[in-house]
Amino acid sequence: MGTMGILAPKLSPNMSEKNLFIHHVYFWLKNPDNKEDYNKLLEGLEALSKVTTIKMCHMGKPAGTNRDVIDRSYSVSWLLLFKNKEDQDKYQVDPIHLKFVEQYSHLWSKVIVYDSVDV
Amino acid sequence: MGTMGILAPKLSPNMSEKNLFIHHVYFWLKNPDNKEDYNKLLEGLEALSKVTTIKMCHMGKPAGTNRDVIDRSYSVSWLLLFKNKEDQDKYQVDPIHLKFVEQYSHLWSKVIVYDSVDV
Repeated sequence: MGTMGILAPKLSPNMSEKNLFIHHVYFWLKNPDNKEDYNKLLEGLEALSKVTTIKMCHMGKPAGTNRDVIDRSYSVSWLLLFKNKEDQDKYQVDPIHLKFVEQYSHLWSKVIVYDSVDV
Repeated sequence: MGTMGILAPKLSPNMSEKNLFIHHVYFWLKNPDNKEDYNKLLEGLEALSKVTTIKMCHMGKPAGTNRDVIDRSYSVSWLLLFKNKEDQDKYQVDPIHLKFVEQYSHLWSKVIVYDSVDV
């Protein structure tokens, strides 16, 4: 997966972003220790990243940090930034997204989504 | 809070980011309907955004989306991107962060943190 340099160098001590729709998904795999299932989900997300209304995406796994407020029980984090709600709505019904759900949803037992917009 | 334009315009249909440490915090206020408490937390996060190792931050609230996999029960979302774990570790012990916890933690009843790094 290529790095397109969406995040420009830091410009100021205050790098607050506005006008974003943040869609953060956490996946819990049915078989969290099965490397094949894990790689399959990543392959699905790789394909999913092609939806054109996505502004930025990041495929993650739990970091090494470990404090009592940290939930590190998930398998994969999928962070998407959109310009606005309309672009996120388009993503939800994009054929690539529908195909992703159809082909890969059998891999996970739980998914939590947090959608956030500017305060 | 100013917009510093950290997110460059979309360059390609695949905008995957790499080399990120993603720190996403969700706050549940003790008094979620108290506008004063809500604004106080935002004021605290505004001050917190000055920590210099932060690459990008976003202060959010639940979006209008509503499906069964979406958790929209939190009050405030606080998304931070760091260059790496070291920068996040510095943030945790930065005097500005310690002061934030000291001055504002009485406002929330629950906090969940998801830290993610590249797969």
